[in-house]
Amino acid sequence: MPPQYSPSLRLRLPLLAFLLETIFILLFVFFVKIDHHEQVHTKFDRKTFMRSYAEFQDVHVMIFMGFGFLATFLVRYGFSGSGFNMLVAAMSIQWAILMNGFLLPQRHYSREIYVNLKSLIEAELCAASALVAMGAVHGKTNPVQLQLLAMVEVTGFVVSQWILRTLLHADPLYSIMLLHIFGALFGVMVSWVLHREGIKPQHEKEKTDRRSGLFSMLGMLFLWMFWPSFNSALVYHWDRGLKLTVIYGTYLSLAVSVVIAMSISMLFSSKGKINMVHVQSSALSGGVAIGVAMTAVHAPWVAMMIGFCAALLSTLGFRYMKSHMLFAFECHDTCGVLNVHAIPGILGWLAHLLLQLTSTESTIAVQFAVHHIFVLLITVCMSMVMGTATGLFLKWSFWRSQQDRKCFDDQAFWEFPNLVEQK
Amino acid sequence: MPPQYSPSLRLRLPLLAFLLETIFILLFVFFVKIDHHEQVHTKFDRKTFMRSYAEFQDVHVMIFMGFGFLATFLVRYGFSGSGFNMLVAAMSIQWAILMNGFLLPQRHYSREIYVNLKSLIEAELCAASALVAMGAVHGKTNPVQLQLLAMVEVTGFVVSQWILRTLLHADPLYSIMLLHIFGALFGVMVSWVLHREGIKPQHEKEKTDRRSGLFSMLGMLFLWMFWPSFNSALVYHWDRGLKLTVIYGTYLSLAVSVVIAMSISMLFSSKGKINMVHVQSSALSGGVAIGVAMTAVHAPWVAMMIGFCAALLSTLGFRYMKSHMLFAFECHDTCGVLNVHAIPGILGWLAHLLLQLTSTESTIAVQFAVHHIFVLLITVCMSMVMGTATGLFLKWSFWRSQQDRKCFDDQAFWEFPNLVEQK
Amino acid sequence: MPPQYSPSLRLRLPLLAFLLETIFILLFVFFVKIDHHEQVHTKFDRKTFMRSYAEFQDVHVMIFMGFGFLATFLVRYGFSGSGFNMLVAAMSIQWAILMNGFLLPQRHYSREIYVNLKSLIEAELCAASALVAMGAVHGKTNPVQLQLLAMVEVTGFVVSQWILRTLLHADPLYSIMLLHIFGALFGVMVSWVLHREGIKPQHEKEKTDRRSGLFSMLGMLFLWMFWPSFNSALVYHWDRGLKLTVIYGTYLSLAVSVVIAMSISMLFSSKGKINMVHVQSSALSGGVAIGVAMTAVHAPWVAMMIGFCAALLSTLGFRYMKSHMLFAFECHDTCGVLNVHAIPGILGWLAHLLLQLTSTESTIAVQFAVHHIFVLLITVCMSMVMGTATGLFLKWSFWRSQQDRKCFDDQAFWEFPNLVEQK
Repeated sequence: MPPQYSPSLRLRLPLLAFLLETIFILLFVFFVKIDHHEQVHTKFDRKTFMRSYAEFQDVHVMIFMGFGFLATFLVRYGFSGSGFNMLVAAMSIQWAILMNGFLLPQRHYSREIYVNLKSLIEAELCAASALVAMGAVHGKTNPVQLQLLAMVEVTGFVVSQWILRTLLHADPLYSIMLLHIFGALFGVMVSWVLHREGIKPQHEKEKTDRRSGLFSMLGMLFLWMFWPSFNSALVYHWDRGLKLTVIYGTYLSLAVSVVIAMSISMLFSSKGKINMVHVQSSALSGGVAIGVAMTAVHAPWVAMMIGFCAALLSTLGFRYMKSHMLFAFECHDTCGVLNVHAIPGILGWLAHLLLQLTSTESTIAVQFAVHHIFVLLITVCMSMVMGTATGLFLKWSFWRSQQDRKCFDDQAFWEFPNLVEQK
Repeated sequence: MPPQYSPSLRLRLPLLAFLLETIFILLFVFFVKIDHHEQVHTKFDRKTFMRSYAEFQDVHVMIFMGFGFLATFLVRYGFSGSGFNMLVAAMSIQWAILMNGFLLPQRHYSREIYVNLKSLIEAELCAASALVAMGAVHGKTNPVQLQLLAMVEVTGFVVSQWILRTLLHADPLYSIMLLHIFGALFGVMVSWVLHREGIKPQHEKEKTDRRSGLFSMLGMLFLWMFWPSFNSALVYHWDRGLKLTVIYGTYLSLAVSVVIAMSISMLFSSKGKINMVHVQSSALSGGVAIGVAMTAVHAPWVAMMIGFCAALLSTLGFRYMKSHMLFAFECHDTCGVLNVHAIPGILGWLAHLLLQLTSTESTIAVQFAVHHIFVLLITVCMSMVMGTATGLFLKWSFWRSQQDRKCFDDQAFWEFPNLVEQK
Repeated sequence: MPPQYSPSLRLRLPLLAFLLETIFILLFVFFVKIDHHEQVHTKFDRKTFMRSYAEFQDVHVMIFMGFGFLATFLVRYGFSGSGFNMLVAAMSIQWAILMNGFLLPQRHYSREIYVNLKSLIEAELCAASALVAMGAVHGKTNPVQLQLLAMVEVTGFVVSQWILRTLLHADPLYSIMLLHIFGALFGVMVSWVLHREGIKPQHEKEKTDRRSGLFSMLGMLFLWMFWPSFNSALVYHWDRGLKLTVIYGTYLSLAVSVVIAMSISMLFSSKGKINMVHVQSSALSGGVAIGVAMTAVHAPWVAMMIGFCAALLSTLGFRYMKSHMLFAFECHDTCGVLNVHAIPGILGWLAHLLLQLTSTESTIAVQFAVHHIFVLLITVCMSMVMGTATGLFLKWSFWRSQQDRKCFDDQAFWEFPNLVEQK
């Protein structure tokens, strides 16, 4: 029934959005306040606020501009890539403020949720995990499905944070960086459940050109440039040593990974040419890996080595594993989040483990290793189980996913009333 | 006389620019100094300077990058949209520094004008009002007309600020945010006077495509992301409570308005598809409305409700009022500034009034309401009268406006010497 | 042997990159530490760090985003322009951290090199000088040549800094700004030695269009907006007066130069039309000139006059000198770095000299002038000699430069596997 297709999404998306916004605003009425005295209740000094604001803005740019434009690399999917990113991020942040406030309150003596820079940065990091998950299913799902996916993903991620922090007493700074692993595996499982035969071996619209390659370069650059802020945003300012180490470590790791990503992409190409999409993705892997490992990295060269290995694995993953995933496991990963977020994230976890073990006495070492392995296992299991469940829920025909031939195409969702469309 | 057309603009633009620049530099020689001691004369503490610098840079990015690229949505008008934005903004800022210094001096005991971050931010906000006005006439006027329009608009806006602040003792923080209403009505009146029959019902070049839609998405994103800085830039740092409220309120209002703009755009489309230009414009309306209302907003949910209503009105305005304005009133509004700046601005004014009345004793309430209504009336009247006068002045054939068929087209003003032009 | 061409670059680029990265990481292992106590050893107060971080990020955006996208103006060279910029900048920064640490250590009592914000900003400024040099040869050299060029250029620039600072006791703040002159002359000499007859009078692929013009507008805007941070980043915060003067001076100089660049471009065009590439380049000349002159500029109008003259000279240079250079001297300058960096730089040097002489007693004046002239002479000679030598080295056929017909074209280096390529 193609003629009924569009009008039904026409009601579904606004209804879902209005429903969610109404719930959000009602919850905000009863529970959320603006925090006028954030510095009094924390160890922050009075000057801290505005300095954090610049870092917060860097993260804000990464979420809306960085992720949004990175997703414009598909030649016919630019409006959806950037537009739905904005829609999903805006809703995820509101939901994450509430979920974080309920499960992981900043002030235990109070039932109220306080909006301050810390809560906004945490909410944006939760939104980032949803955007990573969305990267795996871009082009194959409609905006209603993307919104539902994001709501579940944020819920799951905050619950997993609650488990790690309260049951396993994990360091919040470390555990929140598992967002890369959680989001990527969640998204890959959703994509695996939603697999369409029609996009195999290669969907005709899943391609890039000079224009879309440069737009996604823009998004990638803003992610790459501001990643030191992303990793260090939640480190307290009074912990200067750690903050500086994280900033400079991320910076150096990313500098190495861009060089390695470009070299490996050329070396393993049959014609000796560089693949722009691989470079744009894999150059970021150094930031992911160092983010997970950061609390254990102290020397600049360690950070550089982590960036080296992450870019190596990630680029090889793009060259060889991505198509293998599609053919062997019927799992299509639009933005390659497995290679950009999951694998470098696990590499960072491994580096963290090794660095901690070498600097710890042997008696505590075993205890630490067991704890560390449990943290990863819980993250991996929760993300995969919830991703699979979400996939099954989104497969329901009620959500009216687009037809195969309308995949990777803006025209299913966006008006082009006066379009000069030659491409 | 088409062959004489270009050469005459060839002289007019440089002559006007040289004349204005010479006047500016001469006035700077006699009146303007760099403020080396800004913190001594204000309540700013010594640390304030560099923290404000990051906020100032956010506003700077909005004026030059945000407004500039938002105006590239027309498929053949990208160079003019971004280039003339830069030209006009650069001249407006210099003029606004002088005008603000003469009429609204920071230090009353001194005749000199001091350049400091506050004066630059105020000048950029005045330039913003000129850029809003320019949005209504983009594509239908040449750069000489745009420069003249900007000079008059900045003059008018600073004079209206002087009236509001000295005669009506309005709060500067509140009155400067009326820039949206002043600029939009000014621009719409100019466009009404300059109306061309040739662009009705639809000029063949007034359209958007995938490429120009993404470029304008870039500009919109930088406006959207940095709007919290725009609204809070002039709030003093020692007034922490207000500064935080403005930042978080603007943030939440914008998050809601992007969701609502996208939903309404889909709901009221006959085919159930989203219009990118509407979303890009209306998602910003939450920032406009909360900017005008901000000094009276204290709870996050109020900010969210304001963003909700602003996006609702603004998107409906795009869907129904824009073409009505053209056909019924012969008023063409290229960027839809009426729906993005004027209507959300008046909504914010109304919200401000209601919020103040509910929190004020009844004896003062009437007095406040009368004052509040007068402030709006003066702004509306001044902008409409000056806009009409400017329109009549710019209609003079001496300024050699482009012909109808060269509207919305870069080729009237820009060299494309080696252009591969298929579109 | 065209079929062997690509596979050989396929090995050369990765091998060079791996070799350099291995050397860098090994040197970092032995010599480089993260500076946890930067404020203790300097006059910085404890609050300084995060304020500098925002400025550092501005410079970071200029290097990677600004220079990268400014170089996308060629219609078929966007991937290379932005991608190789990133590659070369990432390697240059690592090398510059080491070179600066060895030759110009921050702490003389220690053999170790400390990574802190100051060392990163200095490294990025050295990378900027390499990127300026690269601008002259863009499109005519392969990435292996670009990397080698950057390594030699950074080495030469740091050595020239060492000579100026230790032998001539030049002010580091002033001498590092000679990066524009050094980089531009170095690049022009390389381009002169590597001259190809095949790109004369005009290579068919050396052209711009609506799309590439807007992408390079983006890069130009980020350079233009953040230039005040670029010029002031190394001024200490406790030297408030100078920092403020530099920021406001750069701001005003750039505001004037954009107006003048646009006017001159229109005035000296036969058809009275503006050339986008000229404007994008010449609008930046005000920032270059004021950067070199800044320590002697005290009044806003002086800064504006410098911006005026720089844009005048630079735009006229583009209109008349660029093609003259190609025909008379067989020197092709892709991005026009001679007109954007060298000539405005020398203008700034001249302004600095004149401003110093007028404010100095006549006895010291001669001494100062001689010193000032020597500083320029050393910079010019070193850059030209090293540029010529580098050009001869890069001419070696072992580096397998692309053929004439593959100049200014991404397809020599980048995969376009699924490209819809109509242009």
